[in-house]
Amino acid sequence: MSIKIGILGYGNLGRGVEAAIKQNPDMVLTGVYTRRSPSDLKIKTEGVAVRHTSELEPKRGDIDVLIICGGSATDLPEMTPKYASLYNVIDSFDTHAKIPEHFANVDRAAKENGTVGIISCGWDPGMFSLNRLYAVSILPEGRDYTFWGKGVSQGHSDAIRRIEGVADARQYTIPVPEALDAVRGGKNPELTTRQKHTRDCYVVAEEGADKAEIERKIKTMPNYFSDYDTTVTFVTAEEMARDHSGLPHGGSVIYSGTTGENNRHVIEYSLNLDSNPEFTGAVLAAYARAAYRMNAESANGAKTVFDIAPAYLSQKSGDELRAHYL
Amino acid sequence: MSIKIGILGYGNLGRGVEAAIKQNPDMVLTGVYTRRSPSDLKIKTEGVAVRHTSELEPKRGDIDVLIICGGSATDLPEMTPKYASLYNVIDSFDTHAKIPEHFANVDRAAKENGTVGIISCGWDPGMFSLNRLYAVSILPEGRDYTFWGKGVSQGHSDAIRRIEGVADARQYTIPVPEALDAVRGGKNPELTTRQKHTRDCYVVAEEGADKAEIERKIKTMPNYFSDYDTTVTFVTAEEMARDHSGLPHGGSVIYSGTTGENNRHVIEYSLNLDSNPEFTGAVLAAYARAAYRMNAESANGAKTVFDIAPAYLSQKSGDELRAHYL
Repeated sequence: MSIKIGILGYGNLGRGVEAAIKQNPDMVLTGVYTRRSPSDLKIKTEGVAVRHTSELEPKRGDIDVLIICGGSATDLPEMTPKYASLYNVIDSFDTHAKIPEHFANVDRAAKENGTVGIISCGWDPGMFSLNRLYAVSILPEGRDYTFWGKGVSQGHSDAIRRIEGVADARQYTIPVPEALDAVRGGKNPELTTRQKHTRDCYVVAEEGADKAEIERKIKTMPNYFSDYDTTVTFVTAEEMARDHSGLPHGGSVIYSGTTGENNRHVIEYSLNLDSNPEFTGAVLAAYARAAYRMNAESANGAKTVFDIAPAYLSQKSGDELRAHYL
Repeated sequence: MSIKIGILGYGNLGRGVEAAIKQNPDMVLTGVYTRRSPSDLKIKTEGVAVRHTSELEPKRGDIDVLIICGGSATDLPEMTPKYASLYNVIDSFDTHAKIPEHFANVDRAAKENGTVGIISCGWDPGMFSLNRLYAVSILPEGRDYTFWGKGVSQGHSDAIRRIEGVADARQYTIPVPEALDAVRGGKNPELTTRQKHTRDCYVVAEEGADKAEIERKIKTMPNYFSDYDTTVTFVTAEEMARDHSGLPHGGSVIYSGTTGENNRHVIEYSLNLDSNPEFTGAVLAAYARAAYRMNAESANGAKTVFDIAPAYLSQKSGDELRAHYL
């Protein structure tokens, strides 16, 4: 019997989840839900209905897990607890400072209604978090470093697009090779923000715009760019479309710790992703399976990747996993 | 209240576990058990008793988890089920083909007696297994590669030492850089044994031994060396002691998979370890905590790293983990 999946929200991430479901034969997409007009939305899976979010209430029989693909700023804090009262849910909430509050809200709704709500799933938070936890649990005396990139930061790209005279922009976050080398070498360096990452910006200027002023505004923008070595390259709209249309990302969690008489161990987990939303969607699909299976065993409440035994992510039986993956 | 740990077996791995326990303030070593004469054994932790294995029966009150540091060939198949009938236990059983049988034996003993028995824990099997499972669960369409080294293989070093005229030997397993590059580049190459690893051997010959004959015997040894490009370097006993006394190891699990319209993702987990037994001991200590905590919640039976939620490895509370590691 297939796990029936609903997708709420059909942006880049929702499309990534849709692509992932096609690769998992034990899952079936039963509906895509949108706050917009459903007739305006064309999805890629044949024969699957697009419905308005109002149809998510009351509880539907054709959803085992609802994968919520909304933004962390305003969508998820409201949506995830709301729908956890009806369905097993999963989200990719990534506002680190507000995770405890979000967890408590989802936990309350899920426990009252006997559902499982997995929050903050994806690769960071998500797979990177797991690797930080495994490493510090194994080597209590050590230190972790997280590097992001090379990859497109949507938030930084959007910040540039809001500058007057900018028609389009793409920002790449790039780890500084010397910093990576020092950390991989087990040197446990102290690194400033500037020493860890650089920022490369590709900008399409509107006709007649003051390029020098655009560059100045980018490089001095607080929080986003002023603490980094930033380069700005102006390109044509055609070059932007040709060279910068993908959404690659990735990065590394590197942990360096010691045991015994100063024996050093370096653990590194790295991702090199052609498509950030498709990989995140694939992580969500695997954890949706876990939500379904844990709930079938009577688990309920909010969970994170820390609370979920790895075997729950797999379609394979315990016997198969021990025989072929251990 | 501390978790009371017993160590059975005091070779390299037992000493690695002992070192790890010192780094975990919630654990205390309450005894080291040996099949030899206890009075012959001097351990590093002050005030801790060395006892004969016969004192493990009947069940003692001062052991919450017994960490069994024996060999996979003959020790663990007998010891782990036997002591699982008395204690929560953990081992590093690594004979891949016999894992299902070992699991079944430990499972039976542990279930009958209400204990938890974690088998096949360490880095491979162990952390590498986890990374193979996470990766294939996220990206069902893909392929995994495991590379070992650069590191000392004890089994291969021992095989050389059994050759006539060899006084001492150390064998390093080294991944072939071109193979690593091809896999990291997402090319999913077909690789023969010879294309994945080379073997570097350092040998101290006995006086008057036929070095050419030793080299020939090493390079043609079936299973161990004949399928590899092997180099043999003769060194003095002093050079061996100076340059090859450590037990470094490590390696990489690399998974390359695709999503959507042929978007490729490469996931890599790498270890670079100064001391193989100390790192393995550190993994065992963290999972001993999990065994204790899961058993305190009434879990029983055999478990592997696949069955254990990551949070169980940590001393920290769920609130702390979500606030600082997610």
